[in-house]
Amino acid sequence: MNILLVGATGKLGTAVHAELADRGHRVLTVGRTAGDLRYDIADPAQVTAMYERAAGIDARDVIDAVVSAAGDVPYKTLTAMTAQDFRAAFQGKVQSQIELVRQGLGRVAERGSFTLITGVLAREPIPTGSAASMANGALEAFVRAAAIEIAPQRINAVSPSVFTESLADYGDFFPGMPPVGLAQVVQAYVRSVEGGQTGQVYTLP
Amino acid sequence: MNILLVGATGKLGTAVHAELADRGHRVLTVGRTAGDLRYDIADPAQVTAMYERAAGIDARDVIDAVVSAAGDVPYKTLTAMTAQDFRAAFQGKVQSQIELVRQGLGRVAERGSFTLITGVLAREPIPTGSAASMANGALEAFVRAAAIEIAPQRINAVSPSVFTESLADYGDFFPGMPPVGLAQVVQAYVRSVEGGQTGQVYTLP
Repeated sequence: MNILLVGATGKLGTAVHAELADRGHRVLTVGRTAGDLRYDIADPAQVTAMYERAAGIDARDVIDAVVSAAGDVPYKTLTAMTAQDFRAAFQGKVQSQIELVRQGLGRVAERGSFTLITGVLAREPIPTGSAASMANGALEAFVRAAAIEIAPQRINAVSPSVFTESLADYGDFFPGMPPVGLAQVVQAYVRSVEGGQTGQVYTLP
Repeated sequence: MNILLVGATGKLGTAVHAELADRGHRVLTVGRTAGDLRYDIADPAQVTAMYERAAGIDARDVIDAVVSAAGDVPYKTLTAMTAQDFRAAFQGKVQSQIELVRQGLGRVAERGSFTLITGVLAREPIPTGSAASMANGALEAFVRAAAIEIAPQRINAVSPSVFTESLADYGDFFPGMPPVGLAQVVQAYVRSVEGGQTGQVYTLP
């Protein structure tokens, strides 16, 4: 398949990229500062530009799957959060990925798919995580709603706990919560891209 | 209790107002175009002004509960939605109610409460409802997250299906989905305001 992978250079995106390439897919990577294409999808106009550029690379090819491992939200106590922090979480994780879908509907194959990244904070809160919870909850409900409108195109979300590989950095924020290995998260992307399901939120582990 | 009721003049707000007044609470109503105070909470600066005005009315009184029945989102097919439509849903239902909480933390009683309005589309999508689903999912996850940070203050969400009283107008959008009578929705507000629970999403019916 021809796959557009956004957020390809982070810990997760790198692992997703490696596995999709291993499985024989042709992956075009998008990032803010690295990747085949350089765009910041938090800006809806740059999503437009990204799709136009991707279509121009080989006009004969259609995109079969759009895969996102990209999303930024601020982490602060609720009393330290500002109105702008919640707007930033919306723009950086929610609107950015919704625009990938909304603007991608006319550019992705008839039976193509979208796979978005959310996270465990949608269901299990942690202190300082209120903006992240908000963003993840927004996306998981959006995925269920979009799925019933875009068929036969498909859309799913991958919603992992903290990565085992990130426990040294972030483990203290997730006391007692089961982590998930990156390899298992990557398989949820494979399931979404190559499988037939839609409207699913793959909660991991 | 002293209760600040936002969105007091809609079908739901009117019913909530009547019940809370019946139960002996002192209710100060807020609306864009009607009510004791006139503010548009979609604008964070107007939330600030609203709280300052409410505090000035009787400086001896503390607010015991902030109750919201206010939220606007656009309904369109996903292909008809624009980036601005999703921003409008965020500002009109998500950011507005988050600001009631964030800015209210220092103004509401130590064991006071916040009760927000979400809706069934967080869990059961309908065509044209992707922005509403996004907004409701965002708020329900936010409520779970905020609850663990703001204790002993409390926060809950009321998440109703279509109202029995609105079936004539909106029933066609909810085929086969159980409606809920306004009286039952109002009791969820009472449960949140007068009870001791926090971090709950009261799904109705």
